[in-house]
Formats: sequence, structure tokens, C-alpha cells
Amino acid sequence: MANTAGQVIKCKAAVSWEAGKPLVIEEVEVAPPQAMEVRLRILYTALCHSDVYFWEAKGQVPLFPRIFGHEAGGIVESVGEGVTELKQEDHVLPIFTGECKECAHCKSAESNMCDLLRVNTDRGVMIEDGKSRFSIKGKPIYHFLGTSTFSQYTVVHSGCVAKINPLAPLDKVFLLSCGFCTGFGATVNVAKPPKGSTVAIFGLGAVGLAAAEGARVSGASRIIGVDVNPNKFEQAKKFGVTEFVNPKDHRKPVLAEMANGGVDRSIECTGNVQAMRLAFESVHDGWGVAVLVGVPNKDDVFQTHPFKFLSERTLKGTFYGNFKPLADVPLLAEKYLNKELELDKFITHFVPLSEINTAFDLMLKGEGIRCLIRMEE
Amino acid sequence: MANTAGQVIKCKAAVSWEAGKPLVIEEVEVAPPQAMEVRLRILYTALCHSDVYFWEAKGQVPLFPRIFGHEAGGIVESVGEGVTELKQEDHVLPIFTGECKECAHCKSAESNMCDLLRVNTDRGVMIEDGKSRFSIKGKPIYHFLGTSTFSQYTVVHSGCVAKINPLAPLDKVFLLSCGFCTGFGATVNVAKPPKGSTVAIFGLGAVGLAAAEGARVSGASRIIGVDVNPNKFEQAKKFGVTEFVNPKDHRKPVLAEMANGGVDRSIECTGNVQAMRLAFESVHDGWGVAVLVGVPNKDDVFQTHPFKFLSERTLKGTFYGNFKPLADVPLLAEKYLNKELELDKFITHFVPLSEINTAFDLMLKGEGIRCLIRMEE
Repeated sequence: MANTAGQVIKCKAAVSWEAGKPLVIEEVEVAPPQAMEVRLRILYTALCHSDVYFWEAKGQVPLFPRIFGHEAGGIVESVGEGVTELKQEDHVLPIFTGECKECAHCKSAESNMCDLLRVNTDRGVMIEDGKSRFSIKGKPIYHFLGTSTFSQYTVVHSGCVAKINPLAPLDKVFLLSCGFCTGFGATVNVAKPPKGSTVAIFGLGAVGLAAAEGARVSGASRIIGVDVNPNKFEQAKKFGVTEFVNPKDHRKPVLAEMANGGVDRSIECTGNVQAMRLAFESVHDGWGVAVLVGVPNKDDVFQTHPFKFLSERTLKGTFYGNFKPLADVPLLAEKYLNKELELDKFITHFVPLSEINTAFDLMLKGEGIRCLIRMEE
Repeated sequence: MANTAGQVIKCKAAVSWEAGKPLVIEEVEVAPPQAMEVRLRILYTALCHSDVYFWEAKGQVPLFPRIFGHEAGGIVESVGEGVTELKQEDHVLPIFTGECKECAHCKSAESNMCDLLRVNTDRGVMIEDGKSRFSIKGKPIYHFLGTSTFSQYTVVHSGCVAKINPLAPLDKVFLLSCGFCTGFGATVNVAKPPKGSTVAIFGLGAVGLAAAEGARVSGASRIIGVDVNPNKFEQAKKFGVTEFVNPKDHRKPVLAEMANGGVDRSIECTGNVQAMRLAFESVHDGWGVAVLVGVPNKDDVFQTHPFKFLSERTLKGTFYGNFKPLADVPLLAEKYLNKELELDKFITHFVPLSEINTAFDLMLKGEGIRCLIRMEE
């Protein structure tokens, strides 16, 4: 690889010019990283629901043209001033949320919601100077989540880049940069199901299946998948889901009855407020814990009867599975290498960057789990 | 004391003949305990908000005539068939919720909501035979919460009776049978504030002050009392409350601003759904925990924005402070003897049974904390 540090790099990127319209592969210019930033060569990425959500921009701030993408793996091409923790050729995962290591959140053992580098869906520029590093013929293109991994090169704040063991295959462990950690952490870090317990998972997409994987490794004896799409059950069995409920098949909630008064834990991965209520009200009184993962619409209101709390139920939310991105992701990559985590089964489809719109079609149709997008053609 | 086992005992009791009307001191007949029951001589009792709530019977099932009272201390007079854990002369606290020691809740380390002996506000009779042990000239008088301690003698299920060290003064430790444990446990067992944290207490009645006591012994550095009655602040200072907020003085919530983004823990002891929402939304993102203690109206709905959960806040409810009544209350009595708990400061007024209506007047006026009612005149 030629040394391109300090130079503008021209490369291919999938640009979203307009809400809901197919992406267009363009040649973009990627400026060098500024202070505390790194420029990454992205090797593998995938489409996640949040990309689709902001690409559709229904009710969201429309920010176009924009380069989406946040679940990815790559290699450091060059580093900006002041970056000491990363160097050229490091294998890394860019992450949509970061660690400044100085704020109250970074100093808390419990939180991963860094004041400086917390996810910001409305910002389309870099924190350092309020500008974009992407352009096409001088016209700036907006960033997304500070990652914009649908480009062969991207610039990311160094506090949002997890350095991993170079032995870990990037075409597998890239999943740790979003969906897998979000679901898996919701179970193992937040819900913490005891061995032998019954866990309900609402929504059997990638995040829900990662939550099921968390229940499986925690030793749950029953994992009940809840989804309005019955086709998801067959696939979910590979992730340890033992039973299936389609809420459309029942006029009343059935989980409490199926589970002797309530499930021990439930993990809500759909973002639908009715599902949130059901997930919470389905946990057992006395000890049940429900965890909210799915992202609702901006104006949604969560409602429940307060007696559901008073009978000793707990409702918690999580963000990125409560993992600390820089500290925990490298450890998860090691777990993959040690065969303690299964990631391969999440990747059901493969396309080159030029066919990225296929990944959108698959997700909109609800087919497969993750479609790996190869950035080098 | 003459041996009265097996005989009907005639004694004084404060009978509530009609919703909201002053109690009347009557001579009542108290039948002997049946299987698994014990008959207690009550020495000290106090009025708690739940008594007033069901005495007013606004929206509650009206069950009259009834003998209220559930916060009390006494001595075992006699035991029914099959009772092996208690004997005559034991010093005990009757408790409105119990332990069968066989159900899933009793076997769970986390729950205290026994399937058999869980609080039941609508039942006015004994579980054993569906009958009352109280009568006046043969006409039955309903029980309340299985305790009915506004009588010099009462019959209670043995699973709802905590046996305590006879050295513990009953005129102080009787507080453990309801309000103190409810508030104190909400803090120490459920909210678990770390040392140096900021805790907000909503509602500065007996339960809220016990919650503040829990925050004080946990080493909280700031304890913010929230109440619409500013007169409560002076008294609350004795319980470790360091700051006071009257929500009526502010057009917008102020707690988050007072506490650098949010309090670490909040304990809601009013039962008002708006206060519940405020208590939850006032905890810090990333690690804040709110605990609901206060009992709402039957049809109240709790509402909040689901993003408040997703930014890593936790909402839990508690019942009797998550204490196991039979297992934990004797240990708390020991802590009082070892001066690890302060109870005396909760008792602000004293009346004999004949003046029990004064305790109602004081509570309705919001004066004092607990009014000790002496049962022996």
C-alpha cells in the first residue's frame, strides 16, 4: 500500500443523494484526518436498521447527500495530530459511539454514553472543525454517525475506533461494531438471565438474534422468540430460540401463561412501543427484568400500569449493550478467536460495494440477517 | 397473664363501622387461632397511610365493619394447630405480607411476594376457613391485611408473624412491620446508592424519611427531599435530608440541573403518577436508578418517553422494601439493638387506644410522622 498519509484520497463510496432513493457509487475525495482523527481503509461493512431509518428519513432530520454505514471493519491508513493509541496498519472497528476517557460517563463503570463522543444521528460533520472530510468535486458530502463506512476510506474520531487483534478475521468480527454487541450486551450485561431461566426475545432480526445468543451462552433453558413474521423462527432456532410466538395469532398476551406467571427476562428489540409494554408486562413479578433495546419513533410514549412496577418488576434500557466500545470490543474479538462467541451464522448474504442496494432490498424484505458488503472490488 | 388458649377473648378494639367515619372503641370477641394461625396480644400500633386509604374507601372495595391496623408489635397469646415456629410469650411483629416458604417467590432470593400470603387488601377474612375471628355479639367484623392491629387481641396467619429478640423494645421496633422497612429497604435493597451519590426522595412522610435514612446509612453525600409541603423540610433534616425542593416553586423540573445532569438515585414515595414520572426522568442517564414505592390509584397510567430508558436509566418498583418479612425483620430488630438503625425519631406523638381518632386527625393534617397508639390502657 502506497503511503497516502497527508494526501486527499480518491476512492469509491456509496452516496445517498436523496431520502429513500437507491445509493449511487461515486468517486469521492477523502481529506486527511485532523487532530485526534484517523483515516481508515474499510474492508467490510454491512447495512443495519439505523442506516435504513435515516436513509428513509421519515420524521428524521433529512441530511443529504450523505454516506451511511456504521457496522464495519478496516485498517488504519493514517492518523491525525495527537493520536497516540492507534497507528498505521492497526486492525480496527469504527464504532458509532466512543470514549473520551475523561467525562463522568467514561469514568463510570456502568455507563458507555460518553459526553463528547456519544452517538449523534443529526450531526453530519466532524467534531474537530464542524466540517466534512468527504467531497465530490469540492462539494461536501455529510457523514453519518461519525463512521460513514459505505466508503472505501473514511475519517473517524480516534475515540470511536476499537483496535483489535490482527488475527481476528475482519470479515467476521466487524459485526461487533454494532448489531451483535447491542443485542448480546443487552442480555449478558443488562438482563443477566440466571442459568435455567426463561427469556423472551421480541424481534428476531440481527439484534434480537444476538440477544438470543446472549441468552444461550448464559444458560437460559427456554428462549421464546416473538415476531410478527413466522418465517423468522426457522432461522432463529440456530441461535438457540426454542419456542416461537406470533402476537398476531393471539387475541391476548400469552407469554405469562406459557411461563408460569411470567418470563424471567425479556429483551425488546423492535422499537415498537406496544411491544415494549408487552415485553415489560410479560416478565414475572418478584424478579422479572425487561430490557429495551429497539429504537422507537421520536414522539412515542411508553405507557404501563404503575402496579406492574410495584410488584417488583424492573425496566431498563441499554445502548450498545452497555459495552464500552474501546475497552470491551477488543475483548469480544478475543472471545471470537477463542470460539466463545459465534458470529459466522449472522452473515447470510454477500455482495460487492457495487451491489450495495441489494443489501437494502434484502433488509426491506426481511430476508437474511446480515449482508456482508466487500469494499474492495 | 391467665391462660386463655382455646377460649374466646373479649377485649377492646377500634372498629370502623363506616367509610371515613371516626372509629368506635368496642368490646369485641376474638376467636381462638385455627390451623397455622396465632393469636397475638397487641401492645403498640400506629396508623399508616394504607389504613387511611381503605378507611376512606374512595374507589376501594368498601368492607365494613372492619378493624384496621397493620403496623404493630405484640406477644403471642396462643398458637393454632400445626404452628411450630412460634410459641406463647414470643415477642413478635405481625406483618401484612408473609412467607409460606414453599412457593417460587419464597424460594427466590429476590422476591418477597409470597403466592399464598402476599398482601391482599380486599380480603376481610382468614385464609384457613374464609371466616373472621372477630365478632361483636355474634356479628362478624372484617379483618384488614390479615393483621387488624387496632384490637388488643388479633389473629394472624403464622406465616405473617416475625419473631424478634425479646430484648428489642416493642414500642420502637414495631415500626419495622410496615413503614420503616418499606422506605429503608427501597433504598438499601433496591436503589443501592453508591457512597457519595446524590439521592432524591419524593414525599417526606414516614416512608420517605425511612428511605432518606437508608440513603444516609449508605453514605449518600446529597439527599434532596421533594415535597409540596415546605413544613416537612425542617423535620426531614433529622433524617439526613440536606436540600429541599418544592415542585410548586418551579415551573420546570429542577433536579437534573441541581445534580449535574441527574440524581444518581430517586425514591418515589407519594404514589402520584406525575411524581413517578418526575422521579424517573430526574435520574442521570448512563447509571440512574429510580425506585417506585408509593401506591397509585387503581386506574393510574405511568407514562414516559421510551428514550429515557434507552439512555440507560432503570425503573424498578418495590414492595415492603424487598425485605423477606420472617427472615429479615428479626435481623433489623438486632440492628436497632446494635444502634445501627435509628427508629425513635419516627415517633412524634403518643395516644392511648381510646384516642385513636387523634392519630387519624394528625395524619390527615400531615402533622408529625408516627403516632404511637398504646393498646393497654
